[in-house]
Order: sequence, then C-alpha cells, then structure tokens
Amino acid sequence: MVHELDTFFKPKTIAVVGASRDSRKIGHAALKNILISDYQCKLYPINPKEETILGLKCYKKISQVPGQIDLVLISVPAIIVPTILKDCVEKKVQNVIIISSGFGEVDNHELENELKEIIKKSKMRVLGPNVMGYKNASIGLDASFAYGTPRKGNVALISQSGALGIGMIYLANNEYMGVSKIIGVGNKIDIDDDDLIDYFAQDPDTKVIGLYVEAVKNGRKFMNSIKKCDKPVLVVKAGRSKAGARATASHTGSMAGSNEIYTAAIKQAGGIRCRDLVELFDMAKALTGQPPAQGNKIGIITNGGGLGILLTDACEETGLTIPKLSTKTYKEIDKILPDLIKPNNPVDLSADAGFFRYELATSALLEDPNIDGIIVASVHGGYARPEEFTGAILKMIRERKLHEAYKKPIIATWVGGREYEDLVIDLKAAGVPIYPSSWRTARAMFALYLEGERIKREKK
Amino acid sequence: MVHELDTFFKPKTIAVVGASRDSRKIGHAALKNILISDYQCKLYPINPKEETILGLKCYKKISQVPGQIDLVLISVPAIIVPTILKDCVEKKVQNVIIISSGFGEVDNHELENELKEIIKKSKMRVLGPNVMGYKNASIGLDASFAYGTPRKGNVALISQSGALGIGMIYLANNEYMGVSKIIGVGNKIDIDDDDLIDYFAQDPDTKVIGLYVEAVKNGRKFMNSIKKCDKPVLVVKAGRSKAGARATASHTGSMAGSNEIYTAAIKQAGGIRCRDLVELFDMAKALTGQPPAQGNKIGIITNGGGLGILLTDACEETGLTIPKLSTKTYKEIDKILPDLIKPNNPVDLSADAGFFRYELATSALLEDPNIDGIIVASVHGGYARPEEFTGAILKMIRERKLHEAYKKPIIATWVGGREYEDLVIDLKAAGVPIYPSSWRTARAMFALYLEGERIKREKK
Repeated sequence: MVHELDTFFKPKTIAVVGASRDSRKIGHAALKNILISDYQCKLYPINPKEETILGLKCYKKISQVPGQIDLVLISVPAIIVPTILKDCVEKKVQNVIIISSGFGEVDNHELENELKEIIKKSKMRVLGPNVMGYKNASIGLDASFAYGTPRKGNVALISQSGALGIGMIYLANNEYMGVSKIIGVGNKIDIDDDDLIDYFAQDPDTKVIGLYVEAVKNGRKFMNSIKKCDKPVLVVKAGRSKAGARATASHTGSMAGSNEIYTAAIKQAGGIRCRDLVELFDMAKALTGQPPAQGNKIGIITNGGGLGILLTDACEETGLTIPKLSTKTYKEIDKILPDLIKPNNPVDLSADAGFFRYELATSALLEDPNIDGIIVASVHGGYARPEEFTGAILKMIRERKLHEAYKKPIIATWVGGREYEDLVIDLKAAGVPIYPSSWRTARAMFALYLEGERIKREKK
Repeated sequence: MVHELDTFFKPKTIAVVGASRDSRKIGHAALKNILISDYQCKLYPINPKEETILGLKCYKKISQVPGQIDLVLISVPAIIVPTILKDCVEKKVQNVIIISSGFGEVDNHELENELKEIIKKSKMRVLGPNVMGYKNASIGLDASFAYGTPRKGNVALISQSGALGIGMIYLANNEYMGVSKIIGVGNKIDIDDDDLIDYFAQDPDTKVIGLYVEAVKNGRKFMNSIKKCDKPVLVVKAGRSKAGARATASHTGSMAGSNEIYTAAIKQAGGIRCRDLVELFDMAKALTGQPPAQGNKIGIITNGGGLGILLTDACEETGLTIPKLSTKTYKEIDKILPDLIKPNNPVDLSADAGFFRYELATSALLEDPNIDGIIVASVHGGYARPEEFTGAILKMIRERKLHEAYKKPIIATWVGGREYEDLVIDLKAAGVPIYPSSWRTARAMFALYLEGERIKREKK
C-alpha cells in the first residue's frame, strides 16, 4: 500500500512559489537545491515578475502550471501566504511546504489560523510554516533551502527547529552517520510528528527515527505513532526544565507540557528519550550499525583496568549489568593473559594487549551464553598499537557478518588522542559505533538493550 | 618554605635501578625519558651487568653512586625490590619511585607489606609500587617510562591507573589542555593522593588539580587535603556501582568504599566530583581558561532557538538558573535583532546572526548585573559563517584581558561539522572552552559557579 505522504517525499512535479533570481533569497536557494538534486522531476519556478530563473521557464501563478502538481514550496512574505495557499487548493495541489515564517512563532496566531482554515476544506497536506523543508537522501532529492548534503543512510531525522535541523546534517556527516530523510516540522499546522513517524515506520530506507521536539500538539497521536512504529524512535524533547519550557514558549509560541509526563509517556510508548542531540546520534549509530542486545548482561574487554571500572560504573548506572563470565570463557581467556592476571568481567587484557588477545577475548564473549552485548575498550597506554585493537574488532565484525549466528552487538570506547583518529573513522564506516566517553558508550549499549526488549514485547 | 616533595619533583640527581640496554624494557624507557628531557640533572643507570647504557656510565649498586641521590626509579622484578629499597635506605636516598608491579594488585600483599616495613624506619618518600612515575611538564622533566609529552600548562593530574594516566596525556593534548604535572600513584604504600594534593596546592605552576581515584586509603586525610587546598580539586572516583567496586577490588586489591559517602564527603570538602574523565577535562579547561562565576545566573546567546532551549534545560538540570536580563540589556539587544524577534534569555540572535550581533549581545551580557556567566552558542544553519561567531568571542576575550573589570566567564557551544574544526582550536588556544554538547557546556559552567562559591567561603 502506498502511504499518503509518498507523493510528498517523492514528488514528480514541484513548483516553487517565490522563486527568485537573487541568490541571497531563500526562494532562490530552494529552487536551486531541487534543480541540482540527483533526482528527476518537473520543476516550475513561480514569480510574476520573471521570464526565466536558473534557466527554467517561470510561471506567474500556480494556476498557469500545466497538469498536476505534487508538491509546492512557498517562500513569500507571510501576509501573501494565504492567497498562495488558496491558489494551491484551487489547483488541487497534493502537498505544500510553507517555508515562510512570521506566524505563530512571532505571536501572529491570527494569520496562522487563517492558514488552518484554508487547509481544513481540502485534502492537501501541508508542512510548516516556518520550516526548512526536507532532504530525501534515499532518492537524492533536496526540497529545502538549507545548505549541506547528508550521507545516505538509514536514520530519519525530524526537527522542530530549523537551525538545529540544519546543524544536524553537519553533525551527522561529522559522525559518519547516514541519513534517509531529514525534515523540519516548524509550526506543524498540518503535517505533524505523528504523521512523519507513521511514514518512516513503513519507509524501507529508514531503520531508526530520531526527533527533536519542542512542543507536541497532540500528545495522544504522538504517543500512538511511536507505539505503532516497529522501529526504534529516539526523542530529544526540549523544554525539560521550567526555564526551558519558558524559552520554548517564546521560540515556537506553544507550551512544552509537563516534563515528567513526557518522560513516562515516551517510555510507555516504547520510545527512547535522549538527553541531547549527542545522545540521539550516539544511539542512532548503535541501532543502525549493530543488532539489538537480547538482554542487559554486558561483557567488557579492556587493556586498562581503570577504564574497565569506569565502563562498569556507567553501565550499572544506566541499567545494564556486568555479570560473571561462564567457566568456559574464563578458561579460554586465562590462556592468553599474562601470569598473575586473572580473568574477570571486565576482562583486563593488560596494557600490552595486542590483536590476538583482543580477538580471542571478543570471540570468547561472543560465544558466552552469560553475555548479551560486548564493549571493547582501548586506552592508549603507549605499548600496544591502537591499530591492533580496532583490527581485532573489525575482524570480529566481518566474521559475524559471514555467520549470522551471533546476534550480539559490539561497540567500542577509546581514551587517547589523534593517533586514534583514522581508526575511529574505519570503525564507524564498518558500522561499529565508538565513543570517547564511558558514559556515552554505556548509554548506546542501553539503547541496544531497550531495542531488544521492544522487539520481544512486539513478538508476544 | 620548600615543600617536602620538592626534591621528588625537582631532583638534581636521579638513579635508575634496572636500567637496560634492551629498548623493549621499561628500565630502558625510563632512563631514556629522563635523558632526553629538556632538564639538567645528574643521571646514573644502575645495572650490575653493564658498563654503559645510552652512553651513560653504569653503576653496579646504588651504594657505588657518588654523593647524594634525590630520586631513584626502580624497575626490577618484584621479588628483588625489597633488597633495592634497603640499599636506598642505606644510601639515604630522599625519594623513590617503584615502577615494578607484582604486589598488592595481584594479591601479593606479603611482599607489599615487606616494602612498607622497610620504609617505616626511614624518612624516604616512596611512590608506588605499580606506577608509571611522573612527568613534570613545568620544568620539562619526564621521570616515567610512558610515551607521550603533555603540553605545558596549569592542570596537575593524579591517576591511580597507569594506563588511564598515560591515556590522559594524549587526551589532554587532543583537547589542547596544558598540564603542569601528571603522576601515577598506583598502590600508594607511602606517597598518597593527599600528599600530592598538598604539594600541588602550593605549586605555583598548578591552578587546577584533577584526580582519577579507585580506592582511597585514608579517607580523612584525603578529604582534609581537598579542604585545605585553595585551588579547585576535580575527582573522578571510580567504582561507584557495586560491580564497579568489585572490579576495583580486583584491579588494585583494595576496596572502593561506599559511593554515597564519597560523593557527600568530596562535596563537603569543597571538591567537585566528575562523572568521568571527559567531564574532568571539560571542567579543568573551563577553570584554567576562565574566571570563576560569581553566582549561578547564566546568560545564553545563540543563533538557534532550539539550541538555546537545550542549553537552558541542561543548565537548570545541573543547578544553574537562566534569569531575566536587565531592562537596559533588553533595550540594547532589541536594537540589533530583526523585526518580530524579541530579546529574551536565551538571547536568540536568529539564524543569520553574524559578528556584530554576537559581539553586541556578549558585550551587553558582560555588563548586565543580572548575569554571572555567559554561554555563547552557534549552530551551523548555513547562513552566518561560524568564523563570525568565534571571532566575536575572541574579541570579547581580548578586551576582557585588557580591562580586568569584568569578572565573568565566557564559554561556548557548537553544533555542526568539520567546518568548525579550526575555529574550535583557535578558541581553545585562547582559553575559551568550547563543547559540542549542551550538557557538557552546562556542567563546565557549573564548575565555574562552584569555584566561585568555594572562593567566597574561603574569604569568610
């Protein structure tokens, strides 16, 4: 079944109202982004004063465009938006993105209500106002005015804040995290977070959904969409604190709602509430790169006892456990450890641990029935080369991909400097999330555990 | 007054027992590190089987070295260490570092007690066993076997874990954080954290003290040393959780003690407990680069409303407040904001904010009596260039350094990608800590607030 928003995300014809020859204008940037997209569609600039823009024939009005229009982007002064929107209804346009700002977010609720009234009488779906649009990396279409091209991948990102949405593109690229779609929702007069969660739930290119939310318009619908979604949903809900809620009200013109209620409701719906964008990205990388954990029993492998303790602390604080290993695992690991060092969990391979100790220990924990997920850690003590640590992990990952028998996530931690830089990129490229902090590592593993639990509940 | 440990950190004669020609041996690395240090001292390798090592005349025994020895490094098998230590006592050596391991940390308590007995009868101060030694970056002396050269700066680091201690050197360099001394304390049979806190408290090259602690041997002395210290003391106390405490016992052969008691005691003593090494470094950078905050009222400047809300949430959660600005500030900021956008705290300069808006807003908050500290934030929305954001901060810092009238810290946050990389380095080099996470930013500002409170208490 084709989802209602399918023509919104894969339009065959697009018109840009307010398209401009002036490269400083948003209407120019939006038209250009679509034009230079690696995507085939019919594209119509609309501007009563121009003959052509960027080499494309320009139309004076929506009504003059021949045939059906799947998507209209509007970038004109707020006061003109209602007229354009009426034109769209008349033309039976399927989807509209109102980029223009100057509505509820600046207390101009009257004008925003006018838009709602116009839409009410149509079947048209409308995103915005006060949005950047979207970038559909899965098919290569950029229907936004924002700069930045995300890497293609499996995380769908929804942002109520335009600036943060754009910042997320750069952040995702910097973290080597691939994106399927990234979309701004702005004032949400029609298309809301729940609509988008529903869409991404059935989108084959999306594995994980991440949201930055300031205000939820319809809490019940929002929670239901998370509940129905058979994919992990990560939520940064801003406005947790009282001052944050005040700032939210001033930013979007809407109330943030009770923080405790959201925390409980998101959890009950099966979503994961993230503390900030960094945590959202950390968890998204783990969830797209690794299988979920079948339980909360974590094995830690390290070349520094101290790092093992810090990771143990962080795991236990976030709700994971560090159990004893099986007798078989103890025996196997004992063979490779230096004299006087006893096998334990965390497994301390000692400072001079190289490729083979890391490889054998990781392999032993993958086979240990007491262990649901593995954290492999390295501190640059100056003796073993960090390459040997990452090399062992990469080998394990390759082997795991060959034999799908082991359904255990492997994630990594490092403490050191620039000597890890290229290695960290190699691991990320292979889908192994690696973090420079014990807390972030533990939280990412916790997300993999929660995802395992969510799937178990679904199967019941 | 010269501190008792002054000859320990600034020895004029050093002997290395267990010095070796074999470059794979720790006794070779330790000798070489001292030899290649940019520091003048007499250096004596001790090895009964060699004539010269690394071009230095070799002695068979400690007793054969001419004159007084300020510091002896011991890197021989554990079983021989008591004999060497007795030689040191006989020679009236002032300070000893026992690098060798194989004592309490591997349950060989008997041998460790033997060392304690030998020391008891002397005035000799002993570091270790099971340590890397120290690097005194203030004077350029490297009395450790570890690789890595820290940047010279004002943070003294004390680590119970050798590997983490070495990792911290790389981490510090990576974060552009300068170090005065970094020292491993290992099994702490004599020189303990409290001795070192006392020493760094009077060390003119140290402004901030950071500790990684697994087990405290004498809680009362430890807390007293923090209490007496007129500098910020940051503590990562590992073994918080039950499993972490078990791992600690297995790593150092000592118990971690009750987590809640430590949290309360460190706080009462005026120290700051950090969640992990990342937080310790974040706070240390803020405390060395910026003045303490005179209160907890924070002003936030941002080019993205969403980022402002996230920072507000994080500040309030950690114990800071985001108050209203003064009427004067509102009026000044109102002049530079685009129409329809109202001044507030967080100050949302809107997505196209460049140098001048950032500069004027920061300047206005520096003069606002309602504000004790300032967070300047930037998300790369693609319109304003990140250079303008960092440029405005750097100008403010330069001006602040000229007019010492403003005693308010400025720290920064960014959300984006590699386009910030060089800029972030520029800020760090100028002493402005900048963090890629709202939570880390808020915690660093909280440390500046706690330091302000500590100083107020001291003055009473």
